[in-house]
Amino acid sequence: MSVKYVSKNGEVYEGEYDLKIARHTTSHILAQAIKRLYPDAKLAIGPAIDNGFYYDFDNLSIKQEDLEKIEAEMKNIVKENLKIEAFKLPREEAIKLMEERNEPYKVELINDIPDGEDISFFKQGEFVDLCVGPHMLYTKGVKAFKLLSITGAYWRGNENNKMLQRIYGTTFENKEKLDEYLKEREEAINRDHNKIGRELELFTTVEEVGQGLPLLMPKGARMMQILQRLVEDEEEKRGYLLTKTPFMAKSDLYKLSGHWDHYKDGMFILGDEKNDKEVFALRPMTCPFQFMIYKNSLHSYKELPFRYNETSTLFRNEASGEMHGLTRVRQFTLSEGHLVVRPDQVEEEFKGVLDLIKYFMRVLNIEDELTYRFSKYDPNDKTGKYIDNKEAWENAQAKMKIILDNLGIDYVEAEGEAAFYGPKLDIQGKNVYGKEDTIITIQLDFFLPESLDMSYVDKDGKKKRPVVIHRSAIGSYERTLAMLIEKYAGAFPLWISPVQVKILPISENEIEYAKKIETELLNNKYRVEVDSSDEKIGYKIRNAQLEKVPYMIILGKDEVNNSTISVRSRSGEKQDNISLDSFKNKLKQEIEDVLK
Amino acid sequence: MSVKYVSKNGEVYEGEYDLKIARHTTSHILAQAIKRLYPDAKLAIGPAIDNGFYYDFDNLSIKQEDLEKIEAEMKNIVKENLKIEAFKLPREEAIKLMEERNEPYKVELINDIPDGEDISFFKQGEFVDLCVGPHMLYTKGVKAFKLLSITGAYWRGNENNKMLQRIYGTTFENKEKLDEYLKEREEAINRDHNKIGRELELFTTVEEVGQGLPLLMPKGARMMQILQRLVEDEEEKRGYLLTKTPFMAKSDLYKLSGHWDHYKDGMFILGDEKNDKEVFALRPMTCPFQFMIYKNSLHSYKELPFRYNETSTLFRNEASGEMHGLTRVRQFTLSEGHLVVRPDQVEEEFKGVLDLIKYFMRVLNIEDELTYRFSKYDPNDKTGKYIDNKEAWENAQAKMKIILDNLGIDYVEAEGEAAFYGPKLDIQGKNVYGKEDTIITIQLDFFLPESLDMSYVDKDGKKKRPVVIHRSAIGSYERTLAMLIEKYAGAFPLWISPVQVKILPISENEIEYAKKIETELLNNKYRVEVDSSDEKIGYKIRNAQLEKVPYMIILGKDEVNNSTISVRSRSGEKQDNISLDSFKNKLKQEIEDVLK
Repeated sequence: MSVKYVSKNGEVYEGEYDLKIARHTTSHILAQAIKRLYPDAKLAIGPAIDNGFYYDFDNLSIKQEDLEKIEAEMKNIVKENLKIEAFKLPREEAIKLMEERNEPYKVELINDIPDGEDISFFKQGEFVDLCVGPHMLYTKGVKAFKLLSITGAYWRGNENNKMLQRIYGTTFENKEKLDEYLKEREEAINRDHNKIGRELELFTTVEEVGQGLPLLMPKGARMMQILQRLVEDEEEKRGYLLTKTPFMAKSDLYKLSGHWDHYKDGMFILGDEKNDKEVFALRPMTCPFQFMIYKNSLHSYKELPFRYNETSTLFRNEASGEMHGLTRVRQFTLSEGHLVVRPDQVEEEFKGVLDLIKYFMRVLNIEDELTYRFSKYDPNDKTGKYIDNKEAWENAQAKMKIILDNLGIDYVEAEGEAAFYGPKLDIQGKNVYGKEDTIITIQLDFFLPESLDMSYVDKDGKKKRPVVIHRSAIGSYERTLAMLIEKYAGAFPLWISPVQVKILPISENEIEYAKKIETELLNNKYRVEVDSSDEKIGYKIRNAQLEKVPYMIILGKDEVNNSTISVRSRSGEKQDNISLDSFKNKLKQEIEDVLK
Repeated sequence: MSVKYVSKNGEVYEGEYDLKIARHTTSHILAQAIKRLYPDAKLAIGPAIDNGFYYDFDNLSIKQEDLEKIEAEMKNIVKENLKIEAFKLPREEAIKLMEERNEPYKVELINDIPDGEDISFFKQGEFVDLCVGPHMLYTKGVKAFKLLSITGAYWRGNENNKMLQRIYGTTFENKEKLDEYLKEREEAINRDHNKIGRELELFTTVEEVGQGLPLLMPKGARMMQILQRLVEDEEEKRGYLLTKTPFMAKSDLYKLSGHWDHYKDGMFILGDEKNDKEVFALRPMTCPFQFMIYKNSLHSYKELPFRYNETSTLFRNEASGEMHGLTRVRQFTLSEGHLVVRPDQVEEEFKGVLDLIKYFMRVLNIEDELTYRFSKYDPNDKTGKYIDNKEAWENAQAKMKIILDNLGIDYVEAEGEAAFYGPKLDIQGKNVYGKEDTIITIQLDFFLPESLDMSYVDKDGKKKRPVVIHRSAIGSYERTLAMLIEKYAGAFPLWISPVQVKILPISENEIEYAKKIETELLNNKYRVEVDSSDEKIGYKIRNAQLEKVPYMIILGKDEVNNSTISVRSRSGEKQDNISLDSFKNKLKQEIEDVLK
């Protein structure tokens, strides 16, 4: 399907249907509809984004139920089939136009445009917007759209500015594609960890505690405990040394490590440098702490590699507006580790780290969904984001590339994504909305061993610099929990289910037998609950289904008489009158199949 | 033995040998000796304390090796047998005297004495000190003394004041008692966790990280992990629900709970109330967080009691000067729990808590060393230390007394030691220096359920207030570790030893066999290391002894040929050529005997 477009220079051209332009044009149609219905609303900005568009307005306070009315007006505008035209004005006239139309945000935007160019606008009917386009040539070009939600958003994303009202929507080429997207989106919302996680009482948030500080409730805390023990135990098997270091340190430590210069904005600071003798900060990373453990004594080349790991709580000082469920948080827990290795051990140890990560990804059943990104520094960065030593960066990145190629990893390269002290291999996953995100990183660091003066005594008796590999083993525990919730919509695999088996006695006559079965399973370290309420069995089964417990054991007269149990799985399979031993074997096998 | 003393009014009297007066007099003799040897030193204060005395000086910088010379001068002063005399002066003359003698600290002290009284002094020979006495009548009354150590101390204990030099010493009735004390003291120093804990590489501290923020090294972190898992698992067995709540919250939460009013000085605050929209604080306790978990949904009387537990990190903002090893710290970890119970469940649940604590005290082998203290509020306190509600306090304390009496607990009562929200049962232990300290508390709380509006729906359909029991299960993990180090001087019982078995192949011919034995023991979850260095076996054994590993397995030609092992215990017992199975049984039994 060929569509007509118009550029900011007024050129009309034809091309394939372009989703991004269509969405941008729909955002103008939205703004036009708003101005028709709410003439006092002020226009801020309205770009196309992944999966749709939004427009921000000041002096507007609509509710979800108003969206229908706005959509109706947008449909009118489409039907009117207005022609969309581009025009340019010199700066002074542009400002004058926007002042006449009473659009202060547009005036502010124009003032920020560098001198020397005319300012471009687009108009359709009575509606005019500051814009660089391109747009569809006619409003009828927009075929299928939907307004989705309303949120607050600070002008220019800055907390100190005024809160505006943002309306989200989306556009597709035709109704079928739009409906398909809306269905997927609804499913994603239903799997959203921020919804299901609360419904299943895995976590909650509390206004008085604050944003980005979720409280894990007993079932969520239990899942976290299972995950952390699994990771700590597997790491122990692989020769890691557990550490437990403090969550804060004096600014002195971060000055030494470079965090004070390169990372201070993201840190929580306790006290201030002007008035206090000692200033502390909550740690954003564990590196300098574990390095201090290494530096506690002199090491021989024979002792290396040291593989340190820690179930480590970290803190990031982020704006309240950006917080979300378990994924955008101010405090999180990472299986954070640092390997201090000789230069000749780097490749072997890098491989070991990757092998460990792959094991956990297999356990979490996301091995096949991952992609790899080789994150490099930006040689043109002038913001002080990276340690300033071009030669060392080039050297570190060249070494990392050789390792990645030798390991046969299929990666993409990304400039400007490195840590401030070294290049990274980022292991990328996708969340339930399809958004890509880094879940695990492995970093190669030649800088910090230098700035923290780490060394070992080599064969020749001389002090040498080790290399450090920074790594996590799984993503942050909070994000991993969120990922599991979304992946399974709360119906967790047996090994990590907070309650694995629910025992349902049919009447009070079976309660004693139920307790006996419970004790037996508890002694075998299974997580079990008995529902000894006086509800009917149908109700008890429905409840267990809602809680998404993997197995129910149903006990009636027969089971007591024959010393058997009847088992019903979450997915509906039934096994009547089997022995407890055979069920225990089944549970054991099902868990071992995952953790093997 | 009768001794002559002199009071500040100049009265001479006779009495039993009084250690406290003897020590106070010795502190004056020390000050006199210092002034003879270092005339420019300025006198601050010099009291008797538990186990001895100290004197603080400004403008002095002596070293440990100078103490001998000072002791010699003190002996001279004793030999001179100076008479000690009291005299009084009006305030103005008192100040004049101290100004003439160039003692500015004494002038400051006099200025702080309330008006209306003459100022009392003691003199012996050329030495005069501001003092209320009493003292021995002659310097020869001091029979056996010793100077012990030198430290820094802030004038008046205030960090903002000048750092002075403090000399510690002690005095006894005779040389035998002094020698006995010095021997005990040396033993205590050798058991000091702050010394052994570092030698065994259990923990370290780092200048750049800061005081009171110890870093647990791999062996210490492992011991902590063992302890925490033991506690979490035992609590799970007893029906506790694990939570994991954030380490910080907005001030709003602490205002609700009363911590902001009653505890703010001890908290780390992030940001300031004047300039920041949101002020956060690191948590000093877990209570309000776990209460919010309870409040997440409405509860029926049938659901109570809720027993929440958390392996919880807490923060206390204390002065750097007061920090020490693992026992005086800014961040620590507590098995913190809160039981939300109906009024009719309080006694039963209190008993359950005590039973849990007793189990852990048995495991830690300190059950017989504990005493109990019933800590009550101070009805005369005007500092706002306690919630202001006399009737509720009396009521809570009366209820607690009934419970303690019914449980047959042998307690002492202590006024003014309660928590701000309720009375406590303190379980008291002693450290290696004999100093008593609270290691665990159980608190009864009728206040916070009110201020946090906690409720349950009772049988009659009405909302009622639950009662909260605050409790820990063992002392803070850091203190528990310190206690274990001191109790066992680092030779830990098998169950908590960071390395339980060290395998020592005699030559490289046995390394393969050693690895096989290691794997077998690792598979049985024992903590094992192989010493495959090329050192002689005698050296390897000495090393393992220094590390205080409970068992060594020594492997030579015979053991390989017969598929046996030879075992040597830390205490010197040997068993040659036994089967690995029989050794494994022995280990299993030894651990079960403790954890049963």
